[in-house]
Amino acid sequence: MSTDRRLRLGAFMRPTSIHGGGWRFPGAWPDANFNFAHYRQAALTLERGRFDALFMADHLAVLNMPIEALKRSATVTSFDPLTLLPALAAVTSKLGLIATASTTYNEPYHVARKFAALDHISGGRAGWNLVTSANPHEAFNFSLEQHVEHGRRYARAREFFDVVTGLWDSWADDAFVRDVESGVYFDPEKLHVLSHKGPHFSVRGPLNIARPIQGWPVIVQAGASDAGRQIAAETAEVVFTNANNLRDAKAYYADVKGRMVLLGRQRDHLKVLPAAFVVVGATVEEARRKKEQLDALVDPASGIASLSVRLGTDASLFDLDGPLPAIPETNDGKGSRQALVDMARERNMTVRQLAQCVGGSYGLLELIGTPQSIADEMERWLMEEGADGFNVMFPYLPGGMDDFVDLVVPELQRRGLFRTEYEGTTLRENLGLPRPPNQFFAA
Amino acid sequence: MSTDRRLRLGAFMRPTSIHGGGWRFPGAWPDANFNFAHYRQAALTLERGRFDALFMADHLAVLNMPIEALKRSATVTSFDPLTLLPALAAVTSKLGLIATASTTYNEPYHVARKFAALDHISGGRAGWNLVTSANPHEAFNFSLEQHVEHGRRYARAREFFDVVTGLWDSWADDAFVRDVESGVYFDPEKLHVLSHKGPHFSVRGPLNIARPIQGWPVIVQAGASDAGRQIAAETAEVVFTNANNLRDAKAYYADVKGRMVLLGRQRDHLKVLPAAFVVVGATVEEARRKKEQLDALVDPASGIASLSVRLGTDASLFDLDGPLPAIPETNDGKGSRQALVDMARERNMTVRQLAQCVGGSYGLLELIGTPQSIADEMERWLMEEGADGFNVMFPYLPGGMDDFVDLVVPELQRRGLFRTEYEGTTLRENLGLPRPPNQFFAA
Ligand SMILES: Cc1cc2nc3c(=O)[nH]c(=O)nc-3n(C[C@H](O)[C@H](O)[C@H](O)COP(=O)(O)O)c2cc1C
Ligand SMILES: Cc1cc2nc3c(=O)[nH]c(=O)nc-3n(C[C@H](O)[C@H](O)[C@H](O)COP(=O)(O)O)c2cc1C
Repeated sequence: MSTDRRLRLGAFMRPTSIHGGGWRFPGAWPDANFNFAHYRQAALTLERGRFDALFMADHLAVLNMPIEALKRSATVTSFDPLTLLPALAAVTSKLGLIATASTTYNEPYHVARKFAALDHISGGRAGWNLVTSANPHEAFNFSLEQHVEHGRRYARAREFFDVVTGLWDSWADDAFVRDVESGVYFDPEKLHVLSHKGPHFSVRGPLNIARPIQGWPVIVQAGASDAGRQIAAETAEVVFTNANNLRDAKAYYADVKGRMVLLGRQRDHLKVLPAAFVVVGATVEEARRKKEQLDALVDPASGIASLSVRLGTDASLFDLDGPLPAIPETNDGKGSRQALVDMARERNMTVRQLAQCVGGSYGLLELIGTPQSIADEMERWLMEEGADGFNVMFPYLPGGMDDFVDLVVPELQRRGLFRTEYEGTTLRENLGLPRPPNQFFAA
Repeated sequence: MSTDRRLRLGAFMRPTSIHGGGWRFPGAWPDANFNFAHYRQAALTLERGRFDALFMADHLAVLNMPIEALKRSATVTSFDPLTLLPALAAVTSKLGLIATASTTYNEPYHVARKFAALDHISGGRAGWNLVTSANPHEAFNFSLEQHVEHGRRYARAREFFDVVTGLWDSWADDAFVRDVESGVYFDPEKLHVLSHKGPHFSVRGPLNIARPIQGWPVIVQAGASDAGRQIAAETAEVVFTNANNLRDAKAYYADVKGRMVLLGRQRDHLKVLPAAFVVVGATVEEARRKKEQLDALVDPASGIASLSVRLGTDASLFDLDGPLPAIPETNDGKGSRQALVDMARERNMTVRQLAQCVGGSYGLLELIGTPQSIADEMERWLMEEGADGFNVMFPYLPGGMDDFVDLVVPELQRRGLFRTEYEGTTLRENLGLPRPPNQFFAA
């Protein structure tokens, strides 16, 4: 087996399980999103399982749902990823740490600096999930009256990326001579003042922190629309997708990697990781029962509310036992909405069924079975180029994560599909990604 | 001795020593501002010394000095405080963690959320040093052509404070019921939607994180101008001052505490901590020699550049051997500039002497002597109400900090002036500050 057909595994935390019933499952931590000790334990479990990275999703507002559904959601609060991950960096040594940060409601100088600091503090384990903000209510927390329009969000994101990476390259890797004798701390020839002036930002620089250990923290993305795929092909090194069947996954994979080739990038410089909601059992039957038990813990009204969020329209007004009607265009996530609409059509789901599915595992790929059957499926997606790995979502913590690490990871390792030891010390080394040269200084 | 006449000690880090020659001192860490392991060691030393808090200064740009001086400055880069302190929270258990965050170049939703997260992660040890940005070049990194005007900075700061504290109070302390049985995660009656609309900000809220463990992280300030003192009297619980003699310190102390009383606040709900640059020796002579050795490591041109920054005007154009000429009004820090001008006048310093002093210990209070003489001076300031404690600046790391913790702290403890054990687990408990009630919910 060639190394590049080995799986990469991320762990998706938002703030803990994505499953609406997860916090109520017997043995689960209901307060996981308040409790740093729980996060520490989870990070150590992932490191023991040789995960590439812990990935922390983020939103800059509470979920945009009616209060009767919101009050049932454990994800209504969460630690800010860029505050949580430095703390986890201090208690781990190999695990990658990927934080989500919006380009819509942030300033590039802050984002560049914080990720550079996280990269230094963690010894080169930082990643930035660049999002354009899925939740339209974020606008209200940043002195705006409405969400920035989809196309403008992506245009701003593209320029934001240029500014951030330009700031990371403010200093040559060897700029800081720290010559105690002469008293010279850095070589002025190795300082680049960015002086960026663009349609969205004017940023002079330089960044007041040394170049990150990885050159640039790993760039991660999750856009599914055409604009989202294009920015991923141009800039991303890891992409999270929400394909829930192998056919769509292969189409997405081929599309994004094809766009990369057109841009002159190497195909294996971007890792495609579909989100996978994984429930492990001793038998397939047991795993299915666990999943049913979980789904039963999701209040039906919460399912409808989750579906409304995903569709960007109030699903409670639909006929719950009829098929999904045509959905008006919205300004929120375009690609991820389409995937859901397609799924409902193909599987002939009623609105009620779709709501239950979204309220549970969010309508994403579900891998429910034994360690063997889950490994079979992961292997298939890897070999048929539907994926370079997975962004694993656990049904509840800590048990759902322990099951994966203790049962599925050894099975993947036995098959030679997953590492038994970390390859390096940085996230880039473990993912097999090159360290970007400084755009302003030859190596 | 009554408990309220006990010293409070903060440790000032910017990013390590404020002294321009500190990084070159024999045995110093020249790379301290790049090296998390060094910071961890420093934090553990401070915790062993029972310090109230580690205080991290911050600027959102490199220092505004000419490149020939800048290249000699170890403070040209630093970790972002809100990224560094969570990592230090994970490796300490009692030490307070105070991060500087500008109200001029930030959004209140981000600031509220990050400090709330730091407070949760640290178990109630967070403090926010609210500054209006001393470095005018920060504007260029945030798409502005010039620094926001002094009065407008303070007006924005005041509203910023109201928004941040309003967001911290989004949830009653007992809002999160997490009832696994019924599936209700929080009580909707205990959620407050801020809906703030003011001249600078429109912020709907609620904050997507639970109320901080301390209610509010401790509010810290360092403004010296009239506007700075007023906002401190209205909102601060700790204030850093730059008084360099007891007379000025007493005047400042009386002024700010008097303003508090007029506003109906209790005098001991704000702790005044002058910055103190401390050099310890076995004899006063030895300490003085150490200080001279340090000062000799500051390049004269760097001294002039530091002075120019503090004055907001190019001091290299002055007659270096003459007295300080009249300084034009600037838009930067007003109060801190005035303190320096007064010092030069009173001590009959030439521009060259003033530059050397600023380039070294920044023109702040210097305590140079034996553990006994330093304790004497600290006791005097405490008893005569010039201070409630000090924000200690170490000449270099780790040696200068070790000397203080190993030699001065025991002397202060012997005199009953300083704790031998932490009083509590939160920064508020250790500082003797009340926990603020939630403004929207009765306890
Ligand atoms: C696995 C996954 C994780 C995501 N995490 C976040 C997130 O943390 N924050 C966010 O604002 N959007 C998140 N998104 C949404 C995407 O960033 C994007 O906004 C959404 O997919 C719509 O993008 P599109 O308009 O290009 O389809 C995530 C999407 C996926 C598939
Ligand atoms: C001990 C001390 C520490 C300070 N730390 C910072 C800092 O980290 N960042 C900053 O922008 N200003 C800092 N300042 C500057 C003050 O916040 C303030 O801008 C300056 O004193 C001018 O305020 P004024 O205009 O009210 O005098 C500090 C001042 C003092 C005395």
